[in-house]
Amino acid sequence: MQRARNFNPGPAALPLAVLEKVQAELLDFAGTGMSILEVSHRSKDYEAVHNAAQSLMRELAGIPEEYTILFLGGGASLQFSMVPMNLLGPGGSADYIITGAWSQKAFKEAKLVGAPRIAASTEQDGKFTRIPTQQELDLDPKARYVHITSNNTIFGTQWHQFPETASVPLVADMSSDFFWRPFDVKRFGLIYGGAQKNLGPAGVTVVIIRKDLLESCREDIPIILRYKTHAKDNSLYNTPPVFAIYILKLVLEWIKERGGLAAMEKENRAKAERIYGVIDAYPEFYRAPVEKQSRSFMNAVFRLPSEALEAKFLEEAKAQRFVGLKGHRSVGGIRVSMYNYVERSWIEELASFMEAFAKANA
Amino acid sequence: MQRARNFNPGPAALPLAVLEKVQAELLDFAGTGMSILEVSHRSKDYEAVHNAAQSLMRELAGIPEEYTILFLGGGASLQFSMVPMNLLGPGGSADYIITGAWSQKAFKEAKLVGAPRIAASTEQDGKFTRIPTQQELDLDPKARYVHITSNNTIFGTQWHQFPETASVPLVADMSSDFFWRPFDVKRFGLIYGGAQKNLGPAGVTVVIIRKDLLESCREDIPIILRYKTHAKDNSLYNTPPVFAIYILKLVLEWIKERGGLAAMEKENRAKAERIYGVIDAYPEFYRAPVEKQSRSFMNAVFRLPSEALEAKFLEEAKAQRFVGLKGHRSVGGIRVSMYNYVERSWIEELASFMEAFAKANA
Repeated sequence: MQRARNFNPGPAALPLAVLEKVQAELLDFAGTGMSILEVSHRSKDYEAVHNAAQSLMRELAGIPEEYTILFLGGGASLQFSMVPMNLLGPGGSADYIITGAWSQKAFKEAKLVGAPRIAASTEQDGKFTRIPTQQELDLDPKARYVHITSNNTIFGTQWHQFPETASVPLVADMSSDFFWRPFDVKRFGLIYGGAQKNLGPAGVTVVIIRKDLLESCREDIPIILRYKTHAKDNSLYNTPPVFAIYILKLVLEWIKERGGLAAMEKENRAKAERIYGVIDAYPEFYRAPVEKQSRSFMNAVFRLPSEALEAKFLEEAKAQRFVGLKGHRSVGGIRVSMYNYVERSWIEELASFMEAFAKANA
Repeated sequence: MQRARNFNPGPAALPLAVLEKVQAELLDFAGTGMSILEVSHRSKDYEAVHNAAQSLMRELAGIPEEYTILFLGGGASLQFSMVPMNLLGPGGSADYIITGAWSQKAFKEAKLVGAPRIAASTEQDGKFTRIPTQQELDLDPKARYVHITSNNTIFGTQWHQFPETASVPLVADMSSDFFWRPFDVKRFGLIYGGAQKNLGPAGVTVVIIRKDLLESCREDIPIILRYKTHAKDNSLYNTPPVFAIYILKLVLEWIKERGGLAAMEKENRAKAERIYGVIDAYPEFYRAPVEKQSRSFMNAVFRLPSEALEAKFLEEAKAQRFVGLKGHRSVGGIRVSMYNYVERSWIEELASFMEAFAKANA
């Protein structure tokens, strides 16, 4: 088999060593004579996986005991609702910083629950090309929380310095850059993220919530949508997405073996620098709309001089087994997603392809 | 490897042929050079899986075009809330028939949304040993729907004839007996079920909803919790649980190859008759609390003359690689779960073990 160079925006590439391990033990998990797909979520064998995934997250990201880690189903989009349902309630106010389509969606769901405000937006003519500065933020000191999307997959921007929110808890959707580098959990009240970009397969969403915030969560909402329900039962209130959590655990082990989040950051920075290096070497040809200081290390987006050239680029890329480079349907162009498990060699090959393509077509 | 005889109450056994197929193609799905865990949910390759899973469900269960099939995350427990949120709303009334712990949970969630009634309950001293008769049902002709749990895993009862509800839509949680036999979808307004017992692994919930009912669903609830949202985007509004749906498709293919739901029923009846045959041959030893006409073909529950004997039974069973026979923690005793993919030979071995154990210990 020739492995595809997978630049999918998510679900995305996973480490080959993890996939091989999953394959090797698919019929017989931990000597049980059963597949991991068949074991009970109440069994000791599964519980060990579940708890190891939590411990590894704590260890790798330095998550202190005053935070609870939850594994939920339903995707990060469900968190767009669960966050305001648990923390806001009718009439409650929160500040949303709008940096792209995902923060817009989160804000829209919050409006259905409470009375959120827009504390800043960098939208211009329907597009987003930067992260706002601290000075631009119109923060309400009485807001229940401040919500950000840490990385914007569609527009290719990323928060490199998280906003200062004083005593107001910062809530972040980290779906697309979770665990890409070391980060200070204590800066946040709540972090959530779907696993399918930087942590595992689609099907599990991780929520990290500070315990005092958890204690203050509302109890007049559906039982299944209360963070407290899941915290009380260690995310085993109902059947969790067992297989997705199992892979999450294997992926976290893989990160640890390779040197943890500092090693991830080093690798991810090198990958992004290589791609942006080509873009900046051919600025007339690879037109990157994002302001340099807001560029995403996870998703580099750019346009070519014409749509015909973009189509040609995608066609030639496909022939060389580069997968997933088409920009989001809402914005067009090209997008290179370079999450944790996108291999450095694929980036090198893509960068060389981009250089050759620019030379041949400029 | 010696395969365990897996009687888990769910997640449960899957067909070995399906697991072998998953294993064989885990590194390279459909010649893409990627694992199914890495493909985009917006790719044609995944779309083919997604749509095939739907078509196979339609074909196997004879689901007519006037019903929409949805694949959602979050578990059947999320449907306990989504059903009343979509169909009831504040003050809205629905009839719940209480036959065990799961219908109690569904009712509790409905109470947080609207004003549901209990149309019947067979609870006696905290236990349930039967399904109510049609005559016992106190149905409100103005109810928005009537809710039942078609099979009760904890107490081992099952609806063999669904209730008559006239023009009021019947809503069923079929998590534990979905697709165990042919059934008339047109009797229902909405059916939901987690896949992890009869249809696949944990992580995907199937919802089958009649289109007129779908049209009438509320729009003042969170976007992600509206059935309409998911119906409009063919369950691709957000990233679906790709891998769980892929296995669902393989399981449905397996059912089809083996003769469809009629073949499933024949096999399941034979399995249940074998186990209940042993129970009835030793009625003083294997004490089955459920009334015969309400017995579940999916979960046979029974007690032994003493807890010491139950412990001995479980210990000896474990030594013979029979897994998952312990009754639910809320009721104790023994439970034999015999979903679709529990092999007939395992049932035969267990039945022989039960006969020998009864003879040795009675």
